[in-house]
Amino acid sequence: MKHLDDLSQLSAATAAWRAAGLHVGFVPTMGALHAGHLSLVGAARAACDRVVVSVFLNPTQFGPNEDLDAYPSDLARDRALLEEAGVDALFTTSPSAMYPDGFATWVEVEGLTDRLCGASREGHFRGVTTVVTKLLNLVGPCRAFFGEKDRQQLVVLQRMVADLNLPVEAVGCPIVREPDGLALSSRNAYLDPAERTRALALSQGLRDAQQAFAGGETSGPALEAAVRARLEAAAAELDYVELVDPGNLARLAVAVPGAVLAVAAKVGSTRLIDNHALGQPWR
Amino acid sequence: MKHLDDLSQLSAATAAWRAAGLHVGFVPTMGALHAGHLSLVGAARAACDRVVVSVFLNPTQFGPNEDLDAYPSDLARDRALLEEAGVDALFTTSPSAMYPDGFATWVEVEGLTDRLCGASREGHFRGVTTVVTKLLNLVGPCRAFFGEKDRQQLVVLQRMVADLNLPVEAVGCPIVREPDGLALSSRNAYLDPAERTRALALSQGLRDAQQAFAGGETSGPALEAAVRARLEAAAAELDYVELVDPGNLARLAVAVPGAVLAVAAKVGSTRLIDNHALGQPWR
Repeated sequence: MKHLDDLSQLSAATAAWRAAGLHVGFVPTMGALHAGHLSLVGAARAACDRVVVSVFLNPTQFGPNEDLDAYPSDLARDRALLEEAGVDALFTTSPSAMYPDGFATWVEVEGLTDRLCGASREGHFRGVTTVVTKLLNLVGPCRAFFGEKDRQQLVVLQRMVADLNLPVEAVGCPIVREPDGLALSSRNAYLDPAERTRALALSQGLRDAQQAFAGGETSGPALEAAVRARLEAAAAELDYVELVDPGNLARLAVAVPGAVLAVAAKVGSTRLIDNHALGQPWR
Repeated sequence: MKHLDDLSQLSAATAAWRAAGLHVGFVPTMGALHAGHLSLVGAARAACDRVVVSVFLNPTQFGPNEDLDAYPSDLARDRALLEEAGVDALFTTSPSAMYPDGFATWVEVEGLTDRLCGASREGHFRGVTTVVTKLLNLVGPCRAFFGEKDRQQLVVLQRMVADLNLPVEAVGCPIVREPDGLALSSRNAYLDPAERTRALALSQGLRDAQQAFAGGETSGPALEAAVRARLEAAAAELDYVELVDPGNLARLAVAVPGAVLAVAAKVGSTRLIDNHALGQPWR
Protein backbone atom coordinates (compact mmCIF):
# COMPACT_ATOMS: atom_id res chain seq x y z
CA MET A 1 0.00 0.00 0.00
CA LYS A 2 1.28 3.43 -0.95
CA HIS A 3 0.92 6.12 1.70
CA LEU A 4 0.53 9.47 -0.05
CA ASP A 5 0.44 12.69 1.93
CA ASP A 6 0.72 15.19 -0.87
CA LEU A 7 -2.20 16.33 -3.01
CA SER A 8 -0.33 16.33 -6.30
CA GLN A 9 1.21 12.91 -5.55
CA LEU A 10 -2.29 11.57 -5.04
CA SER A 11 -3.60 13.06 -8.29
CA ALA A 12 -0.60 11.77 -10.22
CA ALA A 13 -0.95 8.25 -8.84
CA THR A 14 -4.63 7.97 -9.68
CA ALA A 15 -4.17 9.65 -13.08
CA ALA A 16 -1.61 6.98 -13.95
CA TRP A 17 -4.06 4.25 -12.99
CA ARG A 18 -6.84 5.80 -15.06
CA ALA A 19 -4.48 6.24 -18.01
CA ALA A 20 -3.75 2.50 -17.76
CA GLY A 21 -7.48 1.80 -18.03
CA LEU A 22 -7.88 0.83 -14.38
CA HIS A 23 -11.06 1.66 -12.46
CA VAL A 24 -10.40 3.53 -9.25
CA GLY A 25 -12.65 3.14 -6.20
CA PHE A 26 -12.56 5.61 -3.32
CA VAL A 27 -13.53 5.49 0.34
CA PRO A 28 -13.28 8.83 2.17
CA THR A 29 -13.01 8.51 5.96
CA MET A 30 -12.14 10.59 9.01
CA GLY A 31 -10.06 7.74 10.44
CA ALA A 32 -10.73 5.83 13.68
CA LEU A 33 -11.65 3.00 11.37
CA HIS A 34 -14.06 0.22 12.31
CA ALA A 35 -15.70 -2.69 10.53
CA GLY A 36 -18.17 -0.30 8.89
CA HIS A 37 -15.35 1.48 7.09
CA LEU A 38 -13.78 -1.86 6.19
CA SER A 39 -17.05 -2.99 4.61
CA LEU A 40 -16.81 0.05 2.33
CA VAL A 41 -13.26 -0.94 1.45
CA GLY A 42 -14.51 -4.46 0.70
CA ALA A 43 -17.21 -3.10 -1.60
CA ALA A 44 -14.63 -0.94 -3.39
CA ARG A 45 -12.22 -3.86 -3.63
CA ALA A 46 -14.93 -5.99 -5.22
CA ALA A 47 -16.04 -3.36 -7.74
CA CYS A 48 -12.81 -1.62 -8.74
CA ASP A 49 -9.25 -2.34 -9.87
CA ARG A 50 -7.59 0.04 -7.42
CA VAL A 51 -8.81 1.29 -4.05
CA VAL A 52 -7.90 4.64 -2.48
CA VAL A 53 -8.85 5.46 1.12
CA SER A 54 -8.46 8.92 2.59
CA VAL A 55 -8.07 9.49 6.33
CA PHE A 56 -8.72 13.18 6.95
CA LEU A 57 -10.38 14.63 10.02
CA ASN A 58 -12.15 17.43 8.18
CA PRO A 59 -12.48 20.49 10.41
CA THR A 60 -15.06 22.26 8.25
CA GLN A 61 -17.78 19.72 8.99
CA PHE A 62 -17.59 20.28 12.75
CA GLY A 63 -19.43 23.11 14.47
CA PRO A 64 -17.66 25.30 17.05
CA ASN A 65 -19.20 23.35 19.96
CA GLU A 66 -18.70 19.91 18.47
CA ASP A 67 -16.13 17.18 19.05
CA LEU A 68 -13.38 17.97 16.53
CA ASP A 69 -10.68 18.06 19.21
CA ALA A 70 -11.90 14.91 20.93
CA TYR A 71 -12.47 12.85 17.80
CA PRO A 72 -10.62 9.52 18.12
CA SER A 73 -7.52 9.10 16.01
CA ASP A 74 -4.99 6.27 15.57
CA LEU A 75 -3.31 6.48 12.19
CA ALA A 76 -0.90 3.58 12.80
CA ARG A 77 -3.84 1.28 13.54
CA ASP A 78 -5.85 2.65 10.58
CA ARG A 79 -2.91 2.09 8.27
CA ALA A 80 -2.46 -1.51 9.40
CA LEU A 81 -6.17 -2.23 8.91
CA LEU A 82 -6.15 -0.75 5.42
CA GLU A 83 -2.99 -2.60 4.43
CA GLU A 84 -4.60 -5.84 5.59
CA ALA A 85 -7.77 -5.00 3.65
CA GLY A 86 -5.82 -4.76 0.39
CA VAL A 87 -6.04 -1.01 -0.11
CA ASP A 88 -3.74 0.32 -2.84
CA ALA A 89 -3.27 3.86 -1.59
CA LEU A 90 -3.87 5.62 1.70
CA PHE A 91 -4.13 9.40 1.46
CA THR A 92 -3.58 11.60 4.48
CA THR A 93 -3.24 15.36 4.52
CA SER A 94 -3.43 18.40 6.78
CA PRO A 95 -6.15 21.02 7.21
CA SER A 96 -3.74 23.67 5.90
CA ALA A 97 -3.11 21.70 2.70
CA MET A 98 -6.83 21.24 2.13
CA TYR A 99 -7.83 24.77 3.18
CA PRO A 100 -4.85 27.03 2.43
CA ASP A 101 -4.89 30.76 3.14
CA GLY A 102 -7.41 32.45 0.89
CA PHE A 103 -9.62 29.38 0.56
CA ALA A 104 -13.09 30.70 -0.26
CA THR A 105 -15.12 28.12 -2.20
CA TRP A 106 -17.99 26.10 -0.83
CA VAL A 107 -20.34 23.52 -2.27
CA GLU A 108 -23.82 23.61 -0.80
CA VAL A 109 -26.82 21.36 -1.30
CA GLU A 110 -29.89 23.37 -0.39
CA GLY A 111 -33.09 22.02 1.13
CA LEU A 112 -31.96 18.46 1.86
CA THR A 113 -29.42 19.79 4.35
CA ASP A 114 -31.85 21.92 6.38
CA ARG A 115 -33.53 19.03 8.13
CA LEU A 116 -32.68 16.07 10.38
CA CYS A 117 -28.99 16.35 11.31
CA GLY A 118 -28.71 19.61 9.36
CA ALA A 119 -31.16 21.32 11.72
CA SER A 120 -28.92 20.83 14.76
CA ARG A 121 -25.51 20.83 13.02
CA GLU A 122 -25.35 24.14 11.18
CA GLY A 123 -22.73 24.15 8.45
CA HIS A 124 -22.00 20.44 8.85
CA PHE A 125 -23.20 19.35 5.43
CA ARG A 126 -21.53 22.29 3.71
CA GLY A 127 -18.26 21.04 5.17
CA VAL A 128 -19.02 17.49 4.01
CA THR A 129 -20.05 18.41 0.46
CA THR A 130 -17.08 20.72 0.04
CA VAL A 131 -14.46 18.25 1.25
CA VAL A 132 -15.99 15.35 -0.68
CA THR A 133 -15.98 17.44 -3.88
CA LYS A 134 -12.31 18.23 -3.30
CA LEU A 135 -11.40 14.62 -2.59
CA LEU A 136 -13.35 13.35 -5.60
CA ASN A 137 -11.53 15.86 -7.81
CA LEU A 138 -8.17 14.81 -6.39
CA VAL A 139 -8.80 11.06 -6.67
CA GLY A 140 -10.93 10.90 -9.82
CA PRO A 141 -12.65 7.62 -8.91
CA CYS A 142 -15.39 6.01 -10.96
CA ARG A 143 -17.10 4.95 -7.74
CA ALA A 144 -17.04 6.31 -4.19
CA PHE A 145 -18.45 4.37 -1.23
CA PHE A 146 -20.44 5.75 1.70
CA GLY A 147 -22.17 4.08 4.65
CA GLU A 148 -25.93 4.12 4.95
CA LYS A 149 -25.57 4.86 8.66
CA ASP A 150 -25.03 8.46 7.56
CA ARG A 151 -28.19 8.23 5.47
CA GLN A 152 -28.74 11.94 5.08
CA GLN A 153 -25.11 12.42 4.06
CA LEU A 154 -25.52 9.72 1.41
CA VAL A 155 -28.67 11.32 -0.02
CA VAL A 156 -27.05 14.76 0.01
CA LEU A 157 -23.91 13.48 -1.73
CA GLN A 158 -25.90 11.58 -4.36
CA ARG A 159 -27.83 14.80 -5.06
CA MET A 160 -24.56 16.73 -5.30
CA VAL A 161 -22.97 14.21 -7.67
CA ALA A 162 -25.99 14.37 -9.97
CA ASP A 163 -26.36 18.16 -9.78
CA LEU A 164 -22.69 18.93 -10.44
CA ASN A 165 -22.37 16.18 -13.10
CA LEU A 166 -19.47 14.69 -11.17
CA PRO A 167 -18.16 11.72 -13.17
CA VAL A 168 -18.55 9.27 -10.29
CA GLU A 169 -21.16 6.99 -8.77
CA ALA A 170 -21.81 7.52 -5.05
CA VAL A 171 -22.55 4.03 -3.76
CA GLY A 172 -24.36 3.45 -0.46
CA CYS A 173 -23.37 0.42 1.64
CA PRO A 174 -25.37 -1.28 4.42
CA ILE A 175 -24.97 -0.33 8.07
CA VAL A 176 -22.67 -2.64 10.02
CA ARG A 177 -23.84 -3.36 13.57
CA GLU A 178 -22.40 -4.85 16.73
CA PRO A 179 -23.88 -8.27 17.61
CA ASP A 180 -26.30 -6.53 20.00
CA GLY A 181 -27.50 -4.13 17.28
CA LEU A 182 -25.54 -0.93 17.97
CA ALA A 183 -24.59 0.68 14.67
CA LEU A 184 -20.82 0.98 14.35
CA SER A 185 -19.52 4.52 14.75
CA SER A 186 -16.16 6.02 15.60
CA ARG A 187 -18.07 8.02 18.24
CA ASN A 188 -19.06 4.83 20.10
CA ALA A 189 -15.58 5.12 21.65
CA TYR A 190 -16.92 8.03 23.73
CA LEU A 191 -19.45 5.81 25.54
CA ASP A 192 -18.73 4.53 29.04
CA PRO A 193 -20.07 1.04 29.85
CA ALA A 194 -23.40 2.32 31.19
CA GLU A 195 -23.88 4.63 28.22
CA ARG A 196 -22.94 1.81 25.87
CA THR A 197 -25.93 -0.15 27.22
CA ARG A 198 -28.26 2.84 27.03
CA ALA A 199 -27.09 3.51 23.44
CA LEU A 200 -28.85 0.31 22.38
CA ALA A 201 -32.11 2.26 22.64
CA LEU A 202 -31.62 3.62 19.11
CA SER A 203 -31.30 0.25 17.37
CA GLN A 204 -33.83 -1.40 19.67
CA GLY A 205 -36.34 1.34 18.85
CA LEU A 206 -35.74 0.84 15.13
CA ARG A 207 -36.18 -2.92 15.51
CA ASP A 208 -39.41 -2.42 17.42
CA ALA A 209 -40.64 -0.17 14.60
CA GLN A 210 -39.49 -2.66 11.99
CA GLN A 211 -41.45 -5.41 13.73
CA ALA A 212 -44.52 -3.20 14.05
CA PHE A 213 -44.28 -2.41 10.32
CA ALA A 214 -43.94 -6.15 9.55
CA GLY A 215 -47.10 -6.63 11.65
CA GLY A 216 -49.03 -4.10 9.56
CA GLU A 217 -48.41 -0.77 11.30
CA THR A 218 -47.94 1.95 8.67
CA SER A 219 -48.64 5.11 10.68
CA GLY A 220 -45.58 7.35 10.65
CA PRO A 221 -46.34 8.81 14.08
CA ALA A 222 -46.88 5.33 15.55
CA LEU A 223 -43.59 4.03 14.15
CA GLU A 224 -41.76 7.13 15.37
CA ALA A 225 -43.36 6.68 18.79
CA ALA A 226 -41.94 3.16 19.00
CA VAL A 227 -38.43 4.58 18.73
CA ARG A 228 -39.19 7.43 21.09
CA ALA A 229 -40.40 5.00 23.76
CA ARG A 230 -37.06 3.16 23.78
CA LEU A 231 -35.14 6.42 23.96
CA GLU A 232 -37.23 7.65 26.87
CA ALA A 233 -36.75 4.37 28.71
CA ALA A 234 -32.98 4.76 28.29
CA ALA A 235 -33.01 8.46 29.24
CA ALA A 236 -31.48 9.30 25.86
CA GLU A 237 -32.04 12.87 24.74
CA LEU A 238 -33.98 12.84 21.47
CA ASP A 239 -32.79 15.09 18.66
CA TYR A 240 -35.18 13.73 16.05
CA VAL A 241 -36.97 10.61 14.96
CA GLU A 242 -38.62 10.85 11.56
CA LEU A 243 -40.06 8.57 8.95
CA VAL A 244 -38.75 9.91 5.65
CA ASP A 245 -38.70 9.25 1.93
CA PRO A 246 -35.32 7.65 1.09
CA GLY A 247 -34.98 9.72 -2.09
CA ASN A 248 -35.63 13.26 -0.89
CA LEU A 249 -35.82 12.88 2.92
CA ALA A 250 -39.33 14.40 2.96
CA ARG A 251 -41.28 13.34 6.04
CA LEU A 252 -43.80 10.57 5.43
CA ALA A 253 -47.09 10.23 7.29
CA VAL A 254 -47.55 6.66 6.09
CA ALA A 255 -44.86 4.01 5.78
CA VAL A 256 -44.20 2.09 2.59
CA PRO A 257 -41.50 -0.55 2.09
CA GLY A 258 -38.14 1.20 1.84
CA ALA A 259 -39.26 4.24 3.84
CA VAL A 260 -36.48 5.21 6.21
CA LEU A 261 -36.95 5.66 9.92
CA ALA A 262 -34.09 7.91 11.06
CA VAL A 263 -33.11 8.79 14.61
CA ALA A 264 -30.57 11.00 16.36
CA ALA A 265 -30.15 11.21 20.12
CA LYS A 266 -27.64 12.05 22.77
CA VAL A 267 -26.57 9.42 25.27
CA GLY A 268 -24.70 11.35 27.93
CA SER A 269 -22.74 13.85 25.86
CA THR A 270 -22.37 11.56 22.83
CA ARG A 271 -24.57 12.26 19.83
CA LEU A 272 -25.51 9.06 18.00
CA ILE A 273 -27.48 8.44 14.82
CA ASP A 274 -29.06 5.36 13.30
CA ASN A 275 -31.69 4.51 10.71
CA HIS A 276 -33.43 1.61 9.04
CA ALA A 277 -35.22 1.19 5.75
CA LEU A 278 -38.50 -0.51 6.70
CA GLY A 279 -39.01 -3.91 5.16
CA GLN A 280 -35.31 -4.36 4.48
CA PRO A 281 -33.57 -7.19 6.33
CA TRP A 282 -32.16 -6.27 9.73
CA ARG A 283 -28.44 -6.89 9.77
CA MET B 1 -17.32 19.25 -35.98
CA LYS B 2 -19.62 17.11 -33.85
CA HIS B 3 -22.70 18.85 -32.49
CA LEU B 4 -23.64 17.18 -29.19
CA ASP B 5 -26.80 18.15 -27.37
CA ASP B 6 -26.92 15.43 -24.77
CA LEU B 7 -24.94 15.50 -21.52
CA SER B 8 -23.96 11.84 -21.57
CA GLN B 9 -23.00 12.02 -25.27
CA LEU B 10 -20.67 14.87 -24.39
CA SER B 11 -19.08 13.01 -21.47
CA ALA B 12 -18.64 9.88 -23.57
CA ALA B 13 -17.00 11.76 -26.44
CA THR B 14 -14.49 13.55 -24.23
CA ALA B 15 -13.81 10.40 -22.17
CA ALA B 16 -12.90 8.58 -25.37
CA TRP B 17 -10.48 11.38 -26.29
CA ARG B 18 -8.88 11.31 -22.85
CA ALA B 19 -8.61 7.52 -22.98
CA ALA B 20 -6.75 7.89 -26.27
CA GLY B 21 -4.27 10.20 -24.54
CA LEU B 22 -5.57 13.37 -26.19
CA HIS B 23 -5.61 16.68 -24.33
CA VAL B 24 -9.00 18.34 -24.34
CA GLY B 25 -9.39 22.12 -24.28
CA PHE B 26 -12.68 23.78 -23.41
CA VAL B 27 -14.25 27.16 -24.10
CA PRO B 28 -17.58 27.78 -22.32
CA THR B 29 -19.72 30.49 -23.93
CA MET B 30 -23.25 31.85 -23.87
CA GLY B 31 -23.31 32.12 -27.67
CA ALA B 32 -23.62 35.32 -29.74
CA LEU B 33 -20.00 34.67 -30.58
CA HIS B 34 -17.55 37.40 -31.55
CA ALA B 35 -13.82 37.62 -32.19
CA GLY B 36 -13.16 37.55 -28.43
CA HIS B 37 -14.68 34.09 -28.19
CA LEU B 38 -12.81 33.01 -31.31
CA SER B 39 -9.52 34.12 -29.75
CA LEU B 40 -10.28 31.72 -26.88
CA VAL B 41 -10.90 28.97 -29.41
CA GLY B 42 -7.60 29.83 -31.07
CA ALA B 43 -5.76 29.58 -27.75
CA ALA B 44 -7.41 26.22 -27.07
CA ARG B 45 -6.62 25.02 -30.59
CA ALA B 46 -2.95 25.93 -30.09
CA ALA B 47 -2.63 24.28 -26.68
CA CYS B 48 -4.79 21.17 -26.94
CA ASP B 49 -5.47 18.17 -29.19
CA ARG B 50 -9.23 18.53 -29.16
CA VAL B 51 -11.39 21.62 -28.57
CA VAL B 52 -14.89 21.61 -27.12
CA VAL B 53 -17.03 24.77 -27.10
CA SER B 54 -20.31 25.00 -25.20
CA VAL B 55 -23.04 27.44 -26.20
CA PHE B 56 -25.42 27.66 -23.26
CA LEU B 57 -27.30 30.75 -22.19
CA ASN B 58 -27.14 30.01 -18.48
CA PRO B 59 -30.23 31.36 -16.72
CA THR B 60 -28.81 31.06 -13.19
CA GLN B 61 -26.26 33.81 -13.75
CA PHE B 62 -28.89 36.41 -14.63
CA GLY B 63 -30.78 38.37 -12.00
CA PRO B 64 -34.56 38.79 -12.23
CA ASN B 65 -34.22 42.30 -13.71
CA GLU B 66 -31.41 41.47 -16.11
CA ASP B 67 -31.29 40.75 -19.83
CA LEU B 68 -31.71 36.97 -20.02
CA ASP B 69 -34.68 37.23 -22.39
CA ALA B 70 -33.06 39.87 -24.58
CA TYR B 71 -29.62 38.24 -24.78
CA PRO B 72 -28.61 37.90 -28.46
CA SER B 73 -28.69 34.41 -29.92
CA ASP B 74 -27.89 32.98 -33.34
CA LEU B 75 -26.90 29.34 -33.12
CA ALA B 76 -26.60 28.79 -36.87
CA ARG B 77 -24.09 31.62 -37.10
CA ASP B 78 -22.23 30.45 -33.97
CA ARG B 79 -22.02 26.93 -35.37
CA ALA B 80 -20.59 28.13 -38.68
CA LEU B 81 -17.98 30.26 -36.90
CA LEU B 82 -16.91 27.38 -34.68
CA GLU B 83 -16.73 24.95 -37.58
CA GLU B 84 -14.53 27.40 -39.43
CA ALA B 85 -12.34 27.84 -36.36
CA GLY B 86 -11.59 24.12 -36.27
CA VAL B 87 -13.59 23.21 -33.17
CA ASP B 88 -14.01 19.45 -32.66
CA ALA B 89 -17.24 19.45 -30.68
CA LEU B 90 -19.98 21.99 -30.06
CA PHE B 91 -22.13 21.31 -27.02
CA THR B 92 -25.57 22.82 -26.64
CA THR B 93 -28.16 21.96 -24.05
CA SER B 94 -31.32 23.22 -22.38
CA PRO B 95 -31.89 24.80 -18.98
CA SER B 96 -34.03 21.82 -17.98
CA ALA B 97 -31.23 19.38 -18.80
CA MET B 98 -28.74 21.40 -16.79
CA TYR B 99 -31.11 22.19 -13.91
CA PRO B 100 -33.61 19.33 -13.72
CA ASP B 101 -36.39 19.21 -11.13
CA GLY B 102 -34.91 18.85 -7.67
CA PHE B 103 -31.64 20.56 -8.58
CA ALA B 104 -30.26 21.91 -5.29
CA THR B 105 -26.47 22.23 -5.42
CA TRP B 106 -24.52 25.46 -5.70
CA VAL B 107 -20.86 26.34 -5.81
CA GLU B 108 -20.02 29.65 -4.19
CA VAL B 109 -16.79 31.59 -3.96
CA GLU B 110 -17.06 33.88 -0.96
CA GLY B 111 -15.47 37.29 -0.60
CA LEU B 112 -14.18 37.75 -4.15
CA THR B 113 -17.76 37.74 -5.42
CA ASP B 114 -19.08 40.44 -3.06
CA ARG B 115 -17.37 43.34 -4.80
CA LEU B 116 -17.22 45.01 -8.23
CA CYS B 117 -19.79 43.29 -10.48
CA GLY B 118 -20.89 41.09 -7.58
CA ALA B 119 -22.13 44.11 -5.62
CA SER B 120 -24.70 45.04 -8.26
CA ARG B 121 -25.41 41.58 -9.71
CA GLU B 122 -26.55 39.50 -6.73
CA GLY B 123 -26.29 35.77 -7.37
CA HIS B 124 -24.51 36.28 -10.70
CA PHE B 125 -21.22 34.66 -9.72
CA ARG B 126 -22.96 31.79 -7.94
CA GLY B 127 -24.63 31.02 -11.26
CA VAL B 128 -21.31 31.27 -13.09
CA THR B 129 -19.32 29.10 -10.67
CA THR B 130 -22.05 26.48 -10.54
CA VAL B 131 -22.48 26.16 -14.30
CA VAL B 132 -18.74 26.20 -14.96
CA THR B 133 -18.22 23.42 -12.39
CA LYS B 134 -20.92 21.39 -14.12
CA LEU B 135 -19.47 21.98 -17.58
CA LEU B 136 -15.92 21.18 -16.43
CA ASN B 137 -17.17 17.93 -14.91
CA LEU B 138 -19.00 17.03 -18.11
CA VAL B 139 -16.14 17.89 -20.46
CA GLY B 140 -13.13 16.93 -18.33
CA PRO B 141 -10.68 19.28 -20.09
CA CYS B 142 -7.09 19.78 -19.02
CA ARG B 143 -7.42 23.48 -19.84
CA ALA B 144 -10.38 25.86 -20.00
CA PHE B 145 -10.15 29.32 -21.56
CA PHE B 146 -11.74 32.52 -20.31
CA GLY B 147 -11.51 36.12 -21.49
CA GLU B 148 -9.80 38.75 -19.36
CA LYS B 149 -12.61 41.16 -20.21
CA ASP B 150 -14.55 39.35 -17.48
CA ARG B 151 -11.59 39.85 -15.16
CA GLN B 152 -13.48 39.25 -11.91
CA GLN B 153 -15.02 36.09 -13.37
CA LEU B 154 -11.54 34.84 -14.29
CA VAL B 155 -10.15 35.51 -10.80
CA VAL B 156 -13.20 33.87 -9.18
CA LEU B 157 -12.94 30.80 -11.42
CA GLN B 158 -9.20 30.43 -10.83
CA ARG B 159 -9.89 30.59 -7.08
CA MET B 160 -12.63 27.97 -7.47
CA VAL B 161 -10.44 25.64 -9.52
CA ALA B 162 -7.69 25.81 -6.90
CA ASP B 163 -10.03 25.51 -3.92
CA LEU B 164 -11.99 22.56 -5.28
CA ASN B 165 -8.86 20.86 -6.67
CA LEU B 166 -10.49 20.70 -10.08
CA PRO B 167 -8.08 18.90 -12.43
CA VAL B 168 -7.99 21.72 -14.95
CA GLU B 169 -6.09 24.93 -15.62
CA ALA B 170 -8.27 28.04 -16.02
CA VAL B 171 -6.39 30.11 -18.62
CA GLY B 172 -7.02 33.83 -19.04
CA CYS B 173 -6.80 35.31 -22.56
CA PRO B 174 -6.32 38.98 -23.54
CA ILE B 175 -9.24 41.29 -24.24
CA VAL B 176 -10.06 41.69 -27.93
CA ARG B 177 -11.06 45.23 -28.91
CA GLU B 178 -12.67 46.92 -31.87
CA PRO B 179 -10.25 49.13 -33.83
CA ASP B 180 -11.53 52.16 -31.90
CA GLY B 181 -10.90 50.46 -28.54
CA LEU B 182 -14.33 49.17 -27.51
CA ALA B 183 -13.92 45.80 -25.82
CA LEU B 184 -15.83 43.10 -27.68
CA SER B 185 -18.98 41.94 -25.92
CA SER B 186 -22.12 40.18 -27.03
CA ARG B 187 -23.96 43.01 -25.27
CA ASN B 188 -22.51 45.61 -27.68
CA ALA B 189 -25.35 44.51 -29.97
CA TYR B 190 -27.75 46.39 -27.69
CA LEU B 191 -26.11 49.76 -28.44
CA ASP B 192 -27.69 52.17 -30.94
CA PRO B 193 -25.23 54.25 -33.00
CA ALA B 194 -25.15 57.16 -30.56
CA GLU B 195 -24.67 54.79 -27.59
CA ARG B 196 -21.97 52.94 -29.51
CA THR B 197 -20.00 56.21 -29.64
CA ARG B 198 -20.63 57.03 -25.97
CA ALA B 199 -19.56 53.48 -25.04
CA LEU B 200 -16.01 54.36 -26.05
CA ALA B 201 -15.77 56.29 -22.78
CA LEU B 202 -14.84 53.07 -20.93
CA SER B 203 -11.83 52.17 -23.08
CA GLN B 204 -10.83 55.82 -23.55
CA GLY B 205 -10.85 56.29 -19.80
CA LEU B 206 -8.69 53.22 -19.33
CA ARG B 207 -6.25 54.44 -22.01
CA ASP B 208 -6.07 57.86 -20.34
CA ALA B 209 -5.26 56.14 -17.06
CA GLN B 210 -2.73 53.88 -18.78
CA GLN B 211 -1.00 56.93 -20.22
CA ALA B 212 -1.06 58.72 -16.87
CA PHE B 213 0.49 55.62 -15.25
CA ALA B 214 3.15 55.50 -17.98
CA GLY B 215 3.84 59.15 -17.15
CA GLY B 216 4.41 58.41 -13.49
CA GLU B 217 0.96 58.72 -11.90
CA THR B 218 0.51 55.95 -9.31
CA SER B 219 -2.33 57.34 -7.18
CA GLY B 220 -5.30 54.96 -7.30
CA PRO B 221 -7.86 57.76 -6.84
CA ALA B 222 -6.20 59.83 -9.61
CA LEU B 223 -6.20 56.91 -12.05
CA GLU B 224 -9.81 56.10 -11.19
CA ALA B 225 -10.71 59.77 -11.68
CA ALA B 226 -9.29 59.67 -15.22
CA VAL B 227 -11.80 56.98 -16.12
CA ARG B 228 -14.62 58.73 -14.29
CA ALA B 229 -14.00 61.92 -16.26
CA ARG B 230 -14.51 60.14 -19.59
CA LEU B 231 -17.67 58.46 -18.32
CA GLU B 232 -19.09 61.76 -17.11
CA ALA B 233 -18.31 63.44 -20.43
CA ALA B 234 -20.22 60.64 -22.20
CA ALA B 235 -23.10 60.71 -19.71
CA ALA B 236 -22.46 57.07 -18.91
CA GLU B 237 -23.81 55.94 -15.55
CA LEU B 238 -20.93 54.71 -13.42
CA ASP B 239 -21.34 51.46 -11.54
CA TYR B 240 -17.75 51.25 -10.32
CA VAL B 241 -14.22 52.14 -11.26
CA GLU B 242 -11.57 50.59 -9.03
CA LEU B 243 -7.87 49.97 -9.08
CA VAL B 244 -7.47 46.41 -7.78
CA ASP B 245 -4.92 43.71 -7.12
CA PRO B 246 -5.10 41.21 -10.00
CA GLY B 247 -4.77 38.24 -7.65
CA ASN B 248 -7.39 38.93 -5.01
CA LEU B 249 -9.26 41.98 -6.38
CA ALA B 250 -8.51 43.97 -3.22
CA ARG B 251 -8.63 47.71 -3.86
CA LEU B 252 -5.23 49.34 -4.26
CA ALA B 253 -4.43 52.90 -3.21
CA VAL B 254 -1.22 52.92 -5.20
CA ALA B 255 -0.72 51.47 -8.66
CA VAL B 256 2.05 48.98 -9.45
CA PRO B 257 2.67 47.37 -12.85
CA GLY B 258 0.01 44.71 -13.42
CA ALA B 259 -2.53 46.39 -11.13
CA VAL B 260 -5.94 46.22 -12.79
CA LEU B 261 -8.14 49.22 -13.36
CA ALA B 262 -11.67 47.86 -13.72
CA VAL B 263 -14.78 49.75 -14.77
CA ALA B 264 -18.49 49.05 -15.16
CA ALA B 265 -21.02 51.57 -16.43
CA LYS B 266 -24.38 51.80 -18.12
CA VAL B 267 -24.67 53.45 -21.50
CA GLY B 268 -28.38 53.92 -22.00
CA SER B 269 -29.78 50.67 -20.63
CA THR B 270 -26.74 48.57 -21.58
CA ARG B 271 -24.34 47.60 -18.81
CA LEU B 272 -20.75 47.39 -20.08
CA ILE B 273 -17.52 46.38 -18.39
CA ASP B 274 -13.87 46.79 -19.27
CA ASN B 275 -10.49 46.67 -17.55
CA HIS B 276 -6.80 47.05 -18.18
CA ALA B 277 -3.72 45.79 -16.39
CA LEU B 278 -1.54 48.90 -16.04
CA GLY B 279 1.79 48.68 -17.79
CA GLN B 280 0.62 45.88 -20.06
CA PRO B 281 0.49 46.67 -23.79
CA TRP B 282 -2.77 48.15 -24.98
CA ARG B 283 -4.24 45.94 -27.67
